[in-house]
Amino acid sequence: MTKINLKEKLSKFSEHWTPKIIAEMNDYQFKLVKIKGDFVWHDHADTDEVFIVLEGKMVIEFEDETVELNEGDMYVVPKGIQHKPHAENECKVLLVEPRGVVNTGNTEGDLTASNDVWI
Amino acid sequence: MTKINLKEKLSKFSEHWTPKIIAEMNDYQFKLVKIKGDFVWHDHADTDEVFIVLEGKMVIEFEDETVELNEGDMYVVPKGIQHKPHAENECKVLLVEPRGVVNTGNTEGDLTASNDVWI
Repeated sequence: MTKINLKEKLSKFSEHWTPKIIAEMNDYQFKLVKIKGDFVWHDHADTDEVFIVLEGKMVIEFEDETVELNEGDMYVVPKGIQHKPHAENECKVLLVEPRGVVNTGNTEGDLTASNDVWI
Repeated sequence: MTKINLKEKLSKFSEHWTPKIIAEMNDYQFKLVKIKGDFVWHDHADTDEVFIVLEGKMVIEFEDETVELNEGDMYVVPKGIQHKPHAENECKVLLVEPRGVVNTGNTEGDLTASNDVWI
């Protein structure tokens, strides 16, 4: 039981597309990620995924629309829905998802990151 | 699938200690609450509970310590742990917990609020 400060945790890493776990509640995890550039199209077959933008701007492309998220915006990507995150400039995001989720979902590749790194 | 803006949602209510649901992921809910003054001692026997302070300052009293949370601070209250939130001035908080959780946990009373109000 310790207090977690989001900015302090964000200052601990600089690489992109590598979610870092900062907290766990029940079997859910809160992860910080810095994103820049294009991610890959993927889905998570078994779970919804929450994005909360802490700083900057990002977009999530879906098959039929593109959603722009700014600071203070939140989005729930439903399970099984193909999506591709993108940020022109660095964007800092809080993710919420069940323990064990892999960032690239069904699309393993160069951007697949460890799903068990705590900061 | 719609974008949710935390500030816009916060502008939609003014009462204290009445959590409002803004999003659901799987069987978990994201709720906004404005708090001011003293809450009641309570615990949630079956679930952890996440507090993320969006604006202002709050404290959570535990039996053996008091934790002060400022903007950008997050705290996971473990299940079964007695706690009492308090805020001297209004504080705006994002809560994350499973669907169906009652705000006063095991201590029903005047401050018990509906657990199914969406904004």
